[in-house]
Amino acid sequence: MDKAIGGEKVNKKRGKQSLVFASPPIITSTANIVGPMEGEGLLQEYFDYIMPDNLNNLESWEQCESYMMERAIKTAVNKDNSTMEMIDCILAGDLLNQLMSTHFAVRKLNRPFLGLYGACSTMVESLLLGAMFLDGGFANKVAVAASSHHDAAERQYRFPSELGVQRPLGSQWTVTGSGAAVLSILGNGPRITAATIGKIVDYGIKDPNAMGSAMAPAASDTLLRHLQDTERAPEYYDMIFTGDLGSVGKQLVIQLMQEKGMDISSNYQDCGCMIYREEQDTHAGASGCASSAVVFSGYIYRALMTNKLKKILLLGTGSLHSTTSYQQKESIPCIAHAVAVEV
Amino acid sequence: MDKAIGGEKVNKKRGKQSLVFASPPIITSTANIVGPMEGEGLLQEYFDYIMPDNLNNLESWEQCESYMMERAIKTAVNKDNSTMEMIDCILAGDLLNQLMSTHFAVRKLNRPFLGLYGACSTMVESLLLGAMFLDGGFANKVAVAASSHHDAAERQYRFPSELGVQRPLGSQWTVTGSGAAVLSILGNGPRITAATIGKIVDYGIKDPNAMGSAMAPAASDTLLRHLQDTERAPEYYDMIFTGDLGSVGKQLVIQLMQEKGMDISSNYQDCGCMIYREEQDTHAGASGCASSAVVFSGYIYRALMTNKLKKILLLGTGSLHSTTSYQQKESIPCIAHAVAVEV
Repeated sequence: MDKAIGGEKVNKKRGKQSLVFASPPIITSTANIVGPMEGEGLLQEYFDYIMPDNLNNLESWEQCESYMMERAIKTAVNKDNSTMEMIDCILAGDLLNQLMSTHFAVRKLNRPFLGLYGACSTMVESLLLGAMFLDGGFANKVAVAASSHHDAAERQYRFPSELGVQRPLGSQWTVTGSGAAVLSILGNGPRITAATIGKIVDYGIKDPNAMGSAMAPAASDTLLRHLQDTERAPEYYDMIFTGDLGSVGKQLVIQLMQEKGMDISSNYQDCGCMIYREEQDTHAGASGCASSAVVFSGYIYRALMTNKLKKILLLGTGSLHSTTSYQQKESIPCIAHAVAVEV
Repeated sequence: MDKAIGGEKVNKKRGKQSLVFASPPIITSTANIVGPMEGEGLLQEYFDYIMPDNLNNLESWEQCESYMMERAIKTAVNKDNSTMEMIDCILAGDLLNQLMSTHFAVRKLNRPFLGLYGACSTMVESLLLGAMFLDGGFANKVAVAASSHHDAAERQYRFPSELGVQRPLGSQWTVTGSGAAVLSILGNGPRITAATIGKIVDYGIKDPNAMGSAMAPAASDTLLRHLQDTERAPEYYDMIFTGDLGSVGKQLVIQLMQEKGMDISSNYQDCGCMIYREEQDTHAGASGCASSAVVFSGYIYRALMTNKLKKILLLGTGSLHSTTSYQQKESIPCIAHAVAVEV
């Protein structure tokens, strides 16, 4: 059970963090839904549904987030020409306390379910575990999803939107949206060929408005580990994407990789820098579980399906603090998980 | 990939919720730590360490909970005669918003980590996913853990302990403690032979002080599904344990099973009814992630190691509400996951 990376089946050598899948699971469909602000952004054409407002005729932002995840999962299952009964397990999570939006979304779907919390790394955590379900022989088809909602997140983590508190220039804008994917052992689509499970990295940053800076060391740590474990150079990938570092964190990752002698400036982008237009004034870009979830399920998946990209690495980046840990003056522990997706 | 239950490797037929492991992972060690009240209870002799008070010289209850999980994992790894570097992945979670105690515990351990949220079902969720890591060939050794802390949970979910609010008679007492286990592909110990992933079940109960009643239908749903999938009768198991239904929920499970024509009254117990003495006046018994975690890692594991029990089913039961969902007048979605552990 202790074979080398790239070997037949078992890839998890002691001290290594990466898995290479023997029967790489296929991402047979994806779907997403976003709020109006995301719909006015740069990736407009890649979204399945753009809500008219952040409530979408529901009674609370939390209910709206729940609706988004339910719709994203159902749409992905429909696009896969499957029924919900064909989904062996749902793996999902979100940013709200006790995964509120996930639980109320999944309650309606009547499928076996495992709840995950990786903050904004949740979409990649779900893809990674979903791939293990299939490659390990535990399921034929799973659905994975993640969501976030700007107003629900603001009032939980920071200030109620209505208060109109001025945001620091380095802060990011939580994406209102949800992305989902169906992974199958049979079918057409790009495959999850490898994954790297991150360690918690904490450089001592305490400002919850500087999450990009806090998460950058975790992102570069997992990226380096992935490249070492798989004996790949950054150029192996057509593009490397991080989840939601924003413009500040993105520059830090480029610098941190440069210090290790690797130049990723030409094939690296952050999902958080791809969603909003400059004039939408979100400051440092997008954040939230939905940042990587809607960019992956939209732009990246279509680029893979149309062969515009053939090999990508998606790094989900999560800032694992809570309001309580912040109030107790703790620094921000961060994590990044990676999945390699190849045509 | 669609073999029948009990087959060689793949057991997850469409519509079935249970997995039967081809190479059943071995639980090579467990460890736990509890607060003083649990230490004065019925299972005193089964705990590795009893803290003198609920702060244990730390600055906050949350820090104390984090300390408990760190210590439980380290102790389990020590008992396994392993070093932390030999642990391929840690899978863990807790009840606090954004898994605060887990993240601050794991931050110090420098291992690949995946965060889970299943409320009080988290210990079983971690055992189940840990078993998949090993049986799927993705790791040689993993550590799993869950924790809860009475005072940290009270102030987050209900009222600060200092307020002295009178508790309803049906309410349960969140266990202060953490339990951990090391799962290995080689070594001695009982094996995780099968698992059942639960669906979310919601019977419309809205009172967060009646969690036992809310969770009972989820527990019986997963138990029934497990027995059907594996074609076993309840008597197959020496004992069936639920996680934290308390005395009210326990009776309901017995009734719900009776309605299905199954009598489990002689080989069924709830971990929440095993921890405290009657005179400790916790009302309906124990609850919290630590309820099943400390009973499994203590009493149950020792009973398996000494052959007093040979076949058990552990059902982790989780109440998936949040304070926000309660305030928004939502009912309580519940879930139960099961692992079969056999000598």
